[in-house]
Amino acid sequence: MTPGRPVPPPLGRTITPEASPSFAGSLLAAAYGATSPESGLVPLTVSRRAPKEDDVEIAIEFCGLCHSDVHATRGEWRIPPYPLVPGHEIVGRITRVGSAVQDFAPGDRVGVGCMVDSCRECDSCLEGLEQYCERGNVGTYGAKDPRNGDAVTQGGYSSSVVVDRRFVLRIPEGLDPAAAAPLLCAGITTYSPLRYFDVEEGDAVGVVGLGGLGHMAVKIAKAMGADVTVFTTSAAKFEAARELGAHHVVLSTDSEAMEAANRSIDVIIDTVAAPHDLNPYFKTLRLDGALFQLGLPAEEMPPVSPGLLIRRRLAYAGSLIGGIAETQEMLDFCAAHSVASDIEIVGADQLNQAYDRMVAGDVKYRFVLDTSTLQEPSERADA
Amino acid sequence: MTPGRPVPPPLGRTITPEASPSFAGSLLAAAYGATSPESGLVPLTVSRRAPKEDDVEIAIEFCGLCHSDVHATRGEWRIPPYPLVPGHEIVGRITRVGSAVQDFAPGDRVGVGCMVDSCRECDSCLEGLEQYCERGNVGTYGAKDPRNGDAVTQGGYSSSVVVDRRFVLRIPEGLDPAAAAPLLCAGITTYSPLRYFDVEEGDAVGVVGLGGLGHMAVKIAKAMGADVTVFTTSAAKFEAARELGAHHVVLSTDSEAMEAANRSIDVIIDTVAAPHDLNPYFKTLRLDGALFQLGLPAEEMPPVSPGLLIRRRLAYAGSLIGGIAETQEMLDFCAAHSVASDIEIVGADQLNQAYDRMVAGDVKYRFVLDTSTLQEPSERADA
Repeated sequence: MTPGRPVPPPLGRTITPEASPSFAGSLLAAAYGATSPESGLVPLTVSRRAPKEDDVEIAIEFCGLCHSDVHATRGEWRIPPYPLVPGHEIVGRITRVGSAVQDFAPGDRVGVGCMVDSCRECDSCLEGLEQYCERGNVGTYGAKDPRNGDAVTQGGYSSSVVVDRRFVLRIPEGLDPAAAAPLLCAGITTYSPLRYFDVEEGDAVGVVGLGGLGHMAVKIAKAMGADVTVFTTSAAKFEAARELGAHHVVLSTDSEAMEAANRSIDVIIDTVAAPHDLNPYFKTLRLDGALFQLGLPAEEMPPVSPGLLIRRRLAYAGSLIGGIAETQEMLDFCAAHSVASDIEIVGADQLNQAYDRMVAGDVKYRFVLDTSTLQEPSERADA
Repeated sequence: MTPGRPVPPPLGRTITPEASPSFAGSLLAAAYGATSPESGLVPLTVSRRAPKEDDVEIAIEFCGLCHSDVHATRGEWRIPPYPLVPGHEIVGRITRVGSAVQDFAPGDRVGVGCMVDSCRECDSCLEGLEQYCERGNVGTYGAKDPRNGDAVTQGGYSSSVVVDRRFVLRIPEGLDPAAAAPLLCAGITTYSPLRYFDVEEGDAVGVVGLGGLGHMAVKIAKAMGADVTVFTTSAAKFEAARELGAHHVVLSTDSEAMEAANRSIDVIIDTVAAPHDLNPYFKTLRLDGALFQLGLPAEEMPPVSPGLLIRRRLAYAGSLIGGIAETQEMLDFCAAHSVASDIEIVGADQLNQAYDRMVAGDVKYRFVLDTSTLQEPSERADA
């Protein structure tokens, strides 16, 4: 593994027409995925459709490893369709475009995030909030894709992917492609509620939890000009929080420190996906403040005290990734402010070890798969 | 008792300088209040300060009975200072004004709500959000009053009260004074979150619980042009809800009916002060919807499911009465839209029975004390 923030790594294997086993029609792509809840990640070959007129074919260079990939492949939320290739933080270069695609061209560096389609008709979609599509957006992996014969989508731990142009993002020049990959999920998931709350220069932003999402929340909030406080249960994380740019760090288990933070924060981004008591955090909020919970614990959260909400007109809110237009805005914002993820690049044969380390919280702050390390695809697709 | 909506009742006993036992200085006023958690309400005499330069002296005509009066006098939230005269839905006529008072004159019909002062200096106060005063607003009863030697405030179950002009509201002509009294608490408590959420013509408003607050929420939301849905656990309340103007009534214990209400509401005003599961209500909210909880249960609420908040960017919020300027706005709005409370007028000797009926939920929808039924004050103040 390559620890620390990477220098721009070599471009992943480019899929050229010549290299493709099936150029005229569908394409066989190398991938890593799970075949059962217990299988771990194993080499697979997936079939990618031939680009339709609105499609973009992407040679994937990098794909971030999100904690939800672990839950999904291990069947911890629901039993997914297997084999399942995870990955929704995809960065690569375009190899082919469909006949109706005008805004992208081969060679462009692009990204794909958590969704690859939506109904395009409901109020949410018409507002550019495809993540809240009333019929459910089409997830980048493990989802039925109605516009493609209900084929099950397969994600970005793969050498290539084919996606409708409407769900393809442009990766700005100047963003390191590997470090940009996690922006497609961890970045937009924290950017969107900060924008929704209209955070601006001088606002006080709190961040609970310092993992993949939390470290992006710190960087993005700081780039927005906010005064950033990190709440952590571990004094060992103080230095890391400051290195990321946090102005203040509060040990959330220290009741005196929490009391001192009373009424000091405008909005809190809570990234912890385990059950935890939110009431001490509400006390740190100012009038009209909000706490956005982004993580989804498998078990019940402790009850919120309504008196805290009432006495300061607070909101306990949720937020889900971001719309496509907003994701592009976020990428452009990150490029303008030199914000990217702190990553550790892994090869395909290190994926299972990386999953175990993610579960143990042993990563600063996001693993990214270098797809040039994938095996060659076999001659027959597993999915 | 006088059931149903009253015709304008006779003006309560006016306190004239001649009638006052102590004109030059403080005034002795008749009152009803509690002397211990078990005493019930008994006749008392309270001392009202001589109006200072910014003060307004009010001969109280009517005072609404709020459920929180029951909790407070019975010491169910905390043990208050006794004797305690409750009442924070006060309507009457001005008898005297201090030398610096220019905006009010003797004879004006005015009101006093849940607070009689605040620090006037913090950010909340400077924004006209005195209810959220960072040092705590001065409650209309049972609170220390720093600008008056920390005297404990005594409420509106009384023949008179003296209040700083800044916390006195003008009761518009055309509002029945008895039916207007509950607007000072039940009215503003529901109006404020509807305004904060910016409810307008065509928005869908849900109301949970059909008591003193709930029935005001229905009337005010309807007057704002909203499409109003009442959620109730009792099919027996369907007709009452429709009589109040609700467009739809949903039996919240009927899972099919709740399912049919899925994604139909923009904002919910929840007035139930007992623990109850909010998750079924979140499912009825549209994208970016909010549920405002206004009641404060003594026990823990069941946990909120963060997944519901996340998937539609919902907010679980609180709200506390309203600021003074907003309360005046609400009174003017109610006058313009002929909105007032449905009340049952009671005399002083019926107060204890009325409390028991409130606890039993046996009132449509607010009791109002006619202060002309109070005894004469004694010659010595109890408080």
